[in-house]
Amino acid sequence: MEYLKDRIRKDGRVEGKDILKVDSFLNHQIDVALMNAIGEEFYQRFKDHGVTKILTIEASGIAIAAIVAQYFKVPMVFAKKTESRNLDAETYESSVYSFTKDKTYKIRVSKKYIQETDRILIVDDFLANGKAANGLIDIVEQSGATHCGVGIVIEKGFQDGGKILRNKGVNVQSLAIIDRFENQKVIFA
Amino acid sequence: MEYLKDRIRKDGRVEGKDILKVDSFLNHQIDVALMNAIGEEFYQRFKDHGVTKILTIEASGIAIAAIVAQYFKVPMVFAKKTESRNLDAETYESSVYSFTKDKTYKIRVSKKYIQETDRILIVDDFLANGKAANGLIDIVEQSGATHCGVGIVIEKGFQDGGKILRNKGVNVQSLAIIDRFENQKVIFA
Repeated sequence: MEYLKDRIRKDGRVEGKDILKVDSFLNHQIDVALMNAIGEEFYQRFKDHGVTKILTIEASGIAIAAIVAQYFKVPMVFAKKTESRNLDAETYESSVYSFTKDKTYKIRVSKKYIQETDRILIVDDFLANGKAANGLIDIVEQSGATHCGVGIVIEKGFQDGGKILRNKGVNVQSLAIIDRFENQKVIFA
Repeated sequence: MEYLKDRIRKDGRVEGKDILKVDSFLNHQIDVALMNAIGEEFYQRFKDHGVTKILTIEASGIAIAAIVAQYFKVPMVFAKKTESRNLDAETYESSVYSFTKDKTYKIRVSKKYIQETDRILIVDDFLANGKAANGLIDIVEQSGATHCGVGIVIEKGFQDGGKILRNKGVNVQSLAIIDRFENQKVIFA
């Protein structure tokens, strides 16, 4: 998706060895026009899969998933990371290890919002080690629903999450795959 | 907004004395058609205010704010609640006391994403004690930007957040104001 790659080249900032900051348009400030282009692109890639629900994880997946859900005209559900007295007791749970924060956290989705008959498209902003996507897939599998695939805005191709998921037969569609960082510049695959 | 009130009557669940659960359409599973109606309604109410940015707070404000931002054709920014090594060091900060979780947490917005010339519409799912909205207003005021108002999906009119904000001269627009709960039913103001 060239429009996205151009934006990453222009406004993304490489920090250290493996961090790409895109908080000016993707996960702190949100460029809604770009989100719409992303929503349209995921729709084109997954429109023949009978998607009935979009699933993501708080917080940075939510804006993307909400706009993707508009294109599919289906509800969106986001997995919660924190205990909350406003969440149902009956939940599907999985554990996700975050390299960014160096800790394991639980993600939860109320059992009410995934049915066995659902066909679920998982959406997230980044794919690196694949821990979050794996946690979401785990939740979908617990529910007996079908996962149609994983839609990722930016995949760090030099980390192994994408390879692990594809080796398991998951249909991973990443709109921009980064091969490497070179002199603080992003080189796409 | 009758469409919203009907939905709250139909799918909202009153629990205990003061909890309204709307996680089937507003803050866990998201009904995107309803979000669009909400976005259109906020646009009608604030379209003459020269809004340049939508500001909300993670996590449950994000889906609403993203879709509201589509109607205004402006960027959306969400305040973060957690420390993250992916957030800029240079941030506006405020403290918010959560009655739901009985703790105070920091909210932060990178200084890059609010300019003095911005005219900011604050959006959130609920207004009860007004602590989150006050924190966001505090951040806008620190930045020197103008806040055009606060758009709330559901206001608990029996708690004092709305009154406090309106007494300070804030233009609070709530799409559904709850007067009270009676026999587990929602009575609107």
